[in-house]
Parts: sequence; structure tokens; C-alpha cells
Amino acid sequence: MVQHMSLRQPVMRYENKELVEIDDEIVLEFPITIHVNGEEFATMVCTPTHLDELIIGFLASEGLIFFKDDITDLQIDEHAGHAHVNLKSKAPTNQQFYSKRLIGSCCGKSRQFYFQNDARTAKTSMSTSKIHAEACIQLMNQLQDNSIVFKHTGGVHNAALCTTSNLIVDRADIGRHNALDKIYGYCMMNKIPARNNVIVFSGRISSEVLLKAAKIGVGIVLSKSAPTDLAIELADDLNITTVGFIRGESFNVYSHPERIINT
Amino acid sequence: MVQHMSLRQPVMRYENKELVEIDDEIVLEFPITIHVNGEEFATMVCTPTHLDELIIGFLASEGLIFFKDDITDLQIDEHAGHAHVNLKSKAPTNQQFYSKRLIGSCCGKSRQFYFQNDARTAKTSMSTSKIHAEACIQLMNQLQDNSIVFKHTGGVHNAALCTTSNLIVDRADIGRHNALDKIYGYCMMNKIPARNNVIVFSGRISSEVLLKAAKIGVGIVLSKSAPTDLAIELADDLNITTVGFIRGESFNVYSHPERIINT
Repeated sequence: MVQHMSLRQPVMRYENKELVEIDDEIVLEFPITIHVNGEEFATMVCTPTHLDELIIGFLASEGLIFFKDDITDLQIDEHAGHAHVNLKSKAPTNQQFYSKRLIGSCCGKSRQFYFQNDARTAKTSMSTSKIHAEACIQLMNQLQDNSIVFKHTGGVHNAALCTTSNLIVDRADIGRHNALDKIYGYCMMNKIPARNNVIVFSGRISSEVLLKAAKIGVGIVLSKSAPTDLAIELADDLNITTVGFIRGESFNVYSHPERIINT
Repeated sequence: MVQHMSLRQPVMRYENKELVEIDDEIVLEFPITIHVNGEEFATMVCTPTHLDELIIGFLASEGLIFFKDDITDLQIDEHAGHAHVNLKSKAPTNQQFYSKRLIGSCCGKSRQFYFQNDARTAKTSMSTSKIHAEACIQLMNQLQDNSIVFKHTGGVHNAALCTTSNLIVDRADIGRHNALDKIYGYCMMNKIPARNNVIVFSGRISSEVLLKAAKIGVGIVLSKSAPTDLAIELADDLNITTVGFIRGESFNVYSHPERIINT
């Protein structure tokens, strides 16, 4: 198994007005092509760790599977960068379907979904969890303390699944979506219900990140960075609490603040 | 024309252990679907500025056009988020072609290209430019001084086209690739040859960012962040100088350091 995230190699360092050769840590980027039922489905570049989780989470996120057992066979050829997946069902493997624009009504809820597939798979959160304000800060600190590779290489996004007080699992990837897909895959492989848990994320909450969180099924998303207006609209509709700009002892709540306890 | 990048809206702010409502600036995210010769080609989410540049740069980057005049008509419906492009040629508009994995030889140059389309469109740099070490730092400072929205919202990537001493144009987008596509579109619309110019970028140099730079045609890429190993391999092959981690008075050179002058 390729399970490292970076390698060391010589680079030229400019410092104190001089150029000298040093050894530096470089983050890995690995292309993997997923074949579903014998047909090429998608190619992504990723950090080559937890590839099984990544593939399972990605297929779930794309709506091809609902349970891990929907996959009858998963073979990963790490040397060539190919994965071969067999599904129980004859799922439509034409990827064009998955990136087709949703032509919704002009107004109303469906407006914010711009892909047909997302409208089909992103669920309104049924979470009954609440989280203490101080826990938002503590969980973000935990994620950052764990993300050693980021500090060295400046190159990866980190995501974690947490309860409202403790970290369950964290994953890193150069692709922001991949880090979340690995979390999704972990949940499916270990049958962990996400509903009352929390996603903690190092990057910006774009609409795509918010939709991933909705697919995973959490009700609370915490980020060090900011959400976009479209992500906030989706979060409003999907009953998801978004907390951003968690820095030092402060943060902002952008949607559904009723889940934040401050007593 | 929608030309703003952010809006203000009320959010709940947690500070000094209290939750209070404040007004905050939120970065915009806008889905746009591009139709080519009447057929849906791709949907992207972007910052809704310079949409004409974005679309032209994207189509060039995907290899559908080589010159701006290859487009006979471009209509943008900003309300609905759709763009309709007519091309002179009957280019293959099946997007599946563009994301097909390249099955190259096991060894040799083509190994790093993982998409057929990139192998077709990314050019080996013929740049004869050299750049002073101090200019790398100055150009990055200029890009950062100009990026006001980033400071307020933490939400956008910035890219600039520069000579080896001056900034020509800078563009911002929530999508890292979009910022570069806008630069590419600007070059095509204004017939600016990129060969001896420089790309300055706020984000990480992934393989995709490096390939965009190669398609635009520059020989030097400067970044505040780090490149991946795959990006460095591609840069080696494509004769592109990559400079990363430009922070304060220092930086690293990851490929083709012969273009960096320090005298």
C-alpha cells in the first residue's frame, strides 16, 4: 500500500539573498482512474492514502452506491493508478449524467442545486445535535494539531468527523473534496451514522463542500475559513449549521445558529 | 453585468464568549453552464466577474479553441447562469472525451499526463525569460496588495499575469482554475503573447494549475504555496520554472532554476 503523503527532494532555497540547495518535503499527488462495472467512470488526483475509503466515499457521493455492500468487488492497482469496482446493480455509468445541469423552477427550493445528481443525493439534515461554542474552537484546534503534513508542505486539506465533543477520525488530501470523500467512505465502511456528528474542515465551505456534508448526513459543519453565499443558501435549505472563521477564540455562525449553545 | 465579488449579510459572531449579530462580507459563488454549438458542455461555479474571459479561457484550456476568433458568437445569460457559445468548427463537444484517462507508455515523458486532452494542449515552454530573485518577492507582494477581497472574506484565489518586473493583469475567483482561465481569456482577447511572461498565483501549484500555466504558455510560475511532486515532474518536462513558498524575503525553486538570476 502506498500510504505516505509526501517525499523529500532537493530544491533551491533563496534566503538571505543567497540561493542554496536544501532538502524539502514535497506533497504527493496521485492520479487514480475509477472503472465501474468495466467502464471508465472518473479520474481524480489525490493524496494516496486510504484509497479504499476515497473510492467508496466518492461513489456514494456520486449516488452510485448507498451501502458498502452495493460493491461486490473493489480492486486497486496502485502501480498503474487504476481502481476496478463491480456493483450489484447496473448503475448508469455515463458520467455525463452526473454533471448535467439541473433545470429547476425559477424560484423555490431547488434553485440552489445546479446538478441533477446533487438534488437526488443531498439530504435535508435530521440532526438533533447541539454543540457548545467552546467545543467548536476545541475541535478546530484538534484538527489543526493533527495536521502535521500541512505544516510541513502547505499542501493538504484536512477534514474530520467528530462527535459534538470528540474527534472520531481525520483524513487529509490535496483535494478538498477527496478529504471529505475519505470521511464518507470511513463512515460507510465502519457503519458510523453521521446524523448527529460534526464535520470539521480546514478549507473554505463552497457549495460543493456543503453538498458533500449533506450527503454524508451531518447537521453541523465547522471551518477555519469562510462559506460562500451559495453554500449558506444551501445550508439554510438543508437544515445544516455552518460555522466559519474559527480562529483564536472567535468564529461566525452563518446558518441555523439554534444548534450553537452558549451557556 | 454582475461584477461584484461579495455581498454583506447578517451573521452571528462569537467573540469574548458572547454571540451577537453583526454584518459580514460573504464571497459570491455563481454556477454557470456553458453550451457549445447548442449542446451542454460543462457547468462550473465561479466568482461572477469577467465571465467572458472565464469562458474563453476555459474553452481554450479544454482545447476547443485556439484563437478568440474561433468563437463566432458568445451570449451570456447572467440571470439564468447560462452561456451559449458558437464555434466555427464542429468541435467534439462530448465532454467525456476531455476527461478520458490517457493510457500512455509505462515510462517516458507522457507518463505524467493523465488526461488525453492535456497531452494534446499543454505545450513545452519556449520561454527565454529570466527573472531576478528579488522580483519574485516583489511580484508576489503586488498580487497580495491587490487582493482586497481575500483579506475580507478569506474566500478567493488570485492569479496575475506579469512581465518579469511588472504586473499586467490580475484576476480573482473562488475556483483556483477559474482565476487562471480568466487570465488565459484576457490574453486571448487582448492578443498578449504569454511566452516570456510570468504567472503569479496565490494557491498551491497542483498538476492542474501547472498544466493551465503550460497551456497559457508561460515559462515561470510563482506561488505563495507549495507545488506537488506531480506538478514538479510536469514542470521539469515542460521546461517551466516553478517557484513556491514565497513568504517574506525567501522562497524555494522547484524546477528549472536557470531562469532565476541572483546577482
